[in-house]
Amino acid sequence: MIEVSKKDKKVTVIGGGTGLSTLLRGLKRYTEDITAIVTVGDDGGGSGILRKDLGILPPGDIRNCILALADTEPLMEKLLQFRFNEGNLKGQNFGNLFLAAMTGISNNNFMEAIKRMSDVLAVKGMVLPVTLDNMTLSAELENGEIIKGESKIPKKVIEHKSRIKRMNIEPRGARAPIEAIEAIENSDIIVIGPGSLYTSIIPNLLVQDIKEALLRANGRKVYISNIMTQQGETDNYKVSDHVRAIIKHSSPKIIDEIIANIGEINNFYIEKYEMENSEKVELDIENLSGYNVIKENIVSFSKKYARHDSDKLAEIIFNAV
Amino acid sequence: MIEVSKKDKKVTVIGGGTGLSTLLRGLKRYTEDITAIVTVGDDGGGSGILRKDLGILPPGDIRNCILALADTEPLMEKLLQFRFNEGNLKGQNFGNLFLAAMTGISNNNFMEAIKRMSDVLAVKGMVLPVTLDNMTLSAELENGEIIKGESKIPKKVIEHKSRIKRMNIEPRGARAPIEAIEAIENSDIIVIGPGSLYTSIIPNLLVQDIKEALLRANGRKVYISNIMTQQGETDNYKVSDHVRAIIKHSSPKIIDEIIANIGEINNFYIEKYEMENSEKVELDIENLSGYNVIKENIVSFSKKYARHDSDKLAEIIFNAV
Repeated sequence: MIEVSKKDKKVTVIGGGTGLSTLLRGLKRYTEDITAIVTVGDDGGGSGILRKDLGILPPGDIRNCILALADTEPLMEKLLQFRFNEGNLKGQNFGNLFLAAMTGISNNNFMEAIKRMSDVLAVKGMVLPVTLDNMTLSAELENGEIIKGESKIPKKVIEHKSRIKRMNIEPRGARAPIEAIEAIENSDIIVIGPGSLYTSIIPNLLVQDIKEALLRANGRKVYISNIMTQQGETDNYKVSDHVRAIIKHSSPKIIDEIIANIGEINNFYIEKYEMENSEKVELDIENLSGYNVIKENIVSFSKKYARHDSDKLAEIIFNAV
Repeated sequence: MIEVSKKDKKVTVIGGGTGLSTLLRGLKRYTEDITAIVTVGDDGGGSGILRKDLGILPPGDIRNCILALADTEPLMEKLLQFRFNEGNLKGQNFGNLFLAAMTGISNNNFMEAIKRMSDVLAVKGMVLPVTLDNMTLSAELENGEIIKGESKIPKKVIEHKSRIKRMNIEPRGARAPIEAIEAIENSDIIVIGPGSLYTSIIPNLLVQDIKEALLRANGRKVYISNIMTQQGETDNYKVSDHVRAIIKHSSPKIIDEIIANIGEINNFYIEKYEMENSEKVELDIENLSGYNVIKENIVSFSKKYARHDSDKLAEIIFNAV
């Protein structure tokens, strides 16, 4: 019998934002068989402008994942991350324009454009939008308010001094690409997160096809908890609150394991985060019975922020397979 | 004695617009040692917007020459020629944005950005702006009017029912890059044109360094005449009128040879051009004594236009060396 090397393990990650691309940069050292399923609910910033102007899906999160998995020169990476800061193009990211132009020459076929951009940049693996439908997000708050549009949600939650009760997507029947469903079904491990709970993680699980594929999947389903809370989304949330929100929007069987941070955050960072009304996500293991909880130090520090450490995450995920 | 193969011939071309890039597509089959010196007077269209917004030189003509000399896949070429046609980006060419973003990550060093873009696209040869100074064009008309800004010139000439008497550049003391001067001095052949006489050809010769290098150069200096007149620039001009205008703006010794078209233009095209007040440029050889005039059929036809045939031009130029 031939033993399957870890290199041949198939991994699917589900999420959005910086969290997902951080994870991918680590994972690509371990396997080339990675599928990233990326939310397309964003309607703010440069992505929002392109979405409105060109009628395409928001390119930002997808571009970040493509670059995370690309095998390209530092110069190209720098170019594709370049943001114009003057005139008409202010705030516009060049990599987003790349994907938008590629969509233009691909008869507005966004999937084809992503594939072509991935080819040009020698991407290892596959990046997929969670849906090709024109998906938008709305949040129902505990006070009954409905907030439409991802970019408005945290701000409005703060204004209303309320909390998110329930997320919804429009159209409710948004379909996932068949490639995403197959990737989930055929993976050895499926990683959910890290990322903004209500705007990067949960929107993917609200696509019925994705939820159902996860419930059918034989691979292990691992949720990576956030390190810090996010104002307007997860104020005061412990790890169990994150998990509860995910289950509430999908199914109790959506997660098998949890990777939670037990690394220290020193006061320098804690104080910085306090100014943004953000605090460390507490691991309340007593409320997580029934889950295999992997407790590790998964944090690394940039000048300003505490982030997930991409190498540590990848190592933990592959050791656990 | 080793005979130098034609492959090793060094060629410099001077101009702008579509004419120059057409020529380059032919020449690159014969030699890899090509330098294109490109005017940067443009202030209209997408290039004009980027120029104003970002404070960079107009990228359009340079991007066209880079693509003409590039050894890249059809997909990349199509992408870099893609023009957005909606919203905020309407009329903006993606290749221009590529060069603009490359300038951004090159600390606003435009030459460095051109080199890096050329590297990425495996350009054979070198593309150089005629100057790195913020060059603008003005036209003095026969009726005394001064028109500032390249993009306004033909329209205003028509409005004033006058003709161009004299072109000027600002700053008058604009300097050429040293690489352009060296290329002219060391070339076996220097080709001027084809291109819009007053807005693509003459602006280069108004850069003093370029004119002086041409007068010092030992290589043969060949002017390629236009096929059709251009309304608001060269109405009723014969070949000798083109040459006279060039000499008036530089020196009698600026041209050794002239390649002029004797190919027929059939009525279908003649009638189309008549609607744009454009006619065939007549070869008045009696007014061109002192020049070696190469008379050839150098025209090829697209669906709408009569253009220079890039292969024929390249063949003539290399046979003449």
